[in-house]
Amino acid sequence: MQKTKAKTLAGFLELEPRKQIVFDNMKEKIKSVFELNGLSPMDTPILEYSEVLLAKAGGETEKQIYRFTKGENDICMRFDLTVPFAKYSAKFENQLIFPFKRYQIGKVFRGERAQKGRLREFFQCDMDIIDEGELSICADAECVSVLSQVFETLDYFIKIRISNRKLLGGMLDFFCLKEQTTEILNILDKQDKIGTEKTLEELLKITDKAKEILQLTAVNTVEKLEKVKINNTEFNQGVAEIKQLFEILKILKPKNEVVLDLKVIRGLDYYTGTIFEANLLGLGEPISVSAGGRYDNLAENYSNKKLAGVGVSIGLSRLFDILDKNNLLQYKTNTKSQVTIIPLGNTTNFCFDISKTLKENKINCDVLYFDKSFKSKLNYANRKKVPYIIVVGEEEIKNKTFGLKDMETGFVVEDKLENLIKVLRNKNE
Amino acid sequence: MQKTKAKTLAGFLELEPRKQIVFDNMKEKIKSVFELNGLSPMDTPILEYSEVLLAKAGGETEKQIYRFTKGENDICMRFDLTVPFAKYSAKFENQLIFPFKRYQIGKVFRGERAQKGRLREFFQCDMDIIDEGELSICADAECVSVLSQVFETLDYFIKIRISNRKLLGGMLDFFCLKEQTTEILNILDKQDKIGTEKTLEELLKITDKAKEILQLTAVNTVEKLEKVKINNTEFNQGVAEIKQLFEILKILKPKNEVVLDLKVIRGLDYYTGTIFEANLLGLGEPISVSAGGRYDNLAENYSNKKLAGVGVSIGLSRLFDILDKNNLLQYKTNTKSQVTIIPLGNTTNFCFDISKTLKENKINCDVLYFDKSFKSKLNYANRKKVPYIIVVGEEEIKNKTFGLKDMETGFVVEDKLENLIKVLRNKNE
Repeated sequence: MQKTKAKTLAGFLELEPRKQIVFDNMKEKIKSVFELNGLSPMDTPILEYSEVLLAKAGGETEKQIYRFTKGENDICMRFDLTVPFAKYSAKFENQLIFPFKRYQIGKVFRGERAQKGRLREFFQCDMDIIDEGELSICADAECVSVLSQVFETLDYFIKIRISNRKLLGGMLDFFCLKEQTTEILNILDKQDKIGTEKTLEELLKITDKAKEILQLTAVNTVEKLEKVKINNTEFNQGVAEIKQLFEILKILKPKNEVVLDLKVIRGLDYYTGTIFEANLLGLGEPISVSAGGRYDNLAENYSNKKLAGVGVSIGLSRLFDILDKNNLLQYKTNTKSQVTIIPLGNTTNFCFDISKTLKENKINCDVLYFDKSFKSKLNYANRKKVPYIIVVGEEEIKNKTFGLKDMETGFVVEDKLENLIKVLRNKNE
Repeated sequence: MQKTKAKTLAGFLELEPRKQIVFDNMKEKIKSVFELNGLSPMDTPILEYSEVLLAKAGGETEKQIYRFTKGENDICMRFDLTVPFAKYSAKFENQLIFPFKRYQIGKVFRGERAQKGRLREFFQCDMDIIDEGELSICADAECVSVLSQVFETLDYFIKIRISNRKLLGGMLDFFCLKEQTTEILNILDKQDKIGTEKTLEELLKITDKAKEILQLTAVNTVEKLEKVKINNTEFNQGVAEIKQLFEILKILKPKNEVVLDLKVIRGLDYYTGTIFEANLLGLGEPISVSAGGRYDNLAENYSNKKLAGVGVSIGLSRLFDILDKNNLLQYKTNTKSQVTIIPLGNTTNFCFDISKTLKENKINCDVLYFDKSFKSKLNYANRKKVPYIIVVGEEEIKNKTFGLKDMETGFVVEDKLENLIKVLRNKNE
């Protein structure tokens, strides 16, 4: 028979069990932090009408999109979780109770050229807080706080760099450079890569205020920012917002480093106020794993209702991929089972009874009922790296005493089943 | 500004928060049952090379598939979780530890005509047990048991109808009707709909053994099946397997009804032994919500390694959709928050401290820091149907005593925060 090669598309993660278990644990932890903060779960279709998904997108984004026709429908696969959320919030604007706080964890798709490390299918973990009309700046602080909590729970250090779109916007307005905004922001966006000198050189081609611009982007504390003299309403509003945000963060006390950094640009997308990025620390060069910000009118492409919002997106697949490639993940086990029950001789039925009791006590377990030798069953348990085994022979059944073996230490507790369950339940807590 | 209509493709579920919360709870419960039974999580890409996904598929399946070209790649969206699993098990055949037990919960896509109730994007929840070479019949029983456990946990009754492909196969061989298998099975598949008389009529057009065939499909207990005299090896093997399966089920004691039903046909797909279907009870006509069975060689399209397996698939989105449309779901709340903390006056910062303490105690909560009147905050909590609120004014802070209000009963417990936490933690257990 002709075989088809079992291959996977480039840029699509597909994990063997020990890695999938760690990936899912990370996903679960992010979800639990979101829910701990009272966010509602949300889901949207992976496919949408192209006119809906592309209501705003342009140029680069559009090229990356998986788009096709089925029947009479022009269809796109979602490329982020924000545009579908905008549609969702317009669609359900009469059912949603505002302020609305949501989270969504799901796959998004971007058909980029499969460069090194670029994923085409990846999980994003988003949270957003939206309200009718105005939205408290506390919401921006809450996003930063939740982002920090996520990485505290995942046990990785990040640095959250915060700016506000109104700062550079107001300054450019003040210098009468509004029309050069795109050009200037594009140059500033590369500043961390190309260095200050080269940035200055590039800016000087456009404006004689290059030095002043660079002086502002070098500001890195709220105190210094307050001393900057730029007589512009937008700029001053940005300063006031940043000040308020950092004051609330003093109360929320995120455990990860949070800094003011006016070099955060966040492309040319829909953000209108607070913008931030998070870099994973400890890997040599900092790696961007999350970004977010404030948008004034989420659903403007779909509705007349003004919805102000702030959100953050965590790139889970990218984070996992980077940690994996840098050997920073520990793959401890190949199974979700906590106890493998091994029949010795003709005791399978009794093993099923034990597994039933364990499951009633919320202990994940499995029975090795397969027609294999005892030795190969032990070998299986070893290779699976299951935390515990219980071997059940006639003797054990007669004495109603079983041995619970810790596979890591080799230590065996011999006791009645009810007591072994206590040992296992304590371990679970 | 020109608005785009916020519409969703037909056949794609998109749920408002109160429904999404219930949907996610169901998904979580299914997942926890899978993990309780020691199954490993698995995920595969939503997109695959068409040659991989369509290695076996034909005719009807292929018409339904979302298929398109991106760059040089001919791509399909997955239409089930079994074909990707077959590819996965071939791809990782050297890393997987056999027997391998997996579960997968994910979206699949079928571009069917959007008939009433037909979904084009839906969650399937699959489990499979595979082994190299031969696989114990215990695995078939385990699938039936896990399926039953899922519905016990979801708290709905199902009836699991079991047959074995070898029974009708062996009989048709015995009657020298092997070549008419497709035709005959197609007729038998409609038997429950068109009735016995009409079935007989149709069968008589093909064979004079119509009556004998119908007599066999009417057999509904293992005892009766054992008395059927068909001298055919395949048939007898089917009887032996069914007998063994039901014997193991007596040990596993699934709480849902499990019956022998030779009218279960399961189309003409890859099953080779045990086949079963589950119908949701209590809705007038029985509705199919799950199906599964035994396949002799999962990965034959991709590998020379023989992998025998058995699996079951639960149609979560379809199940949810049916329950929803029949008003059988209770939508109790619009939030995952357990406690909403409401500042009265200028106490928001203190409220943040309280929320921090609650979160440290694993209590989902949120603070209403929004710039709204106290009345509208109470109204918000009411509409959200949050289980509890704590109102925090200057007085409460001074006395270090807070009121925890149960929003359903209106009952208020006034106590120190640490004691209120105990109340809430007890509720969570």
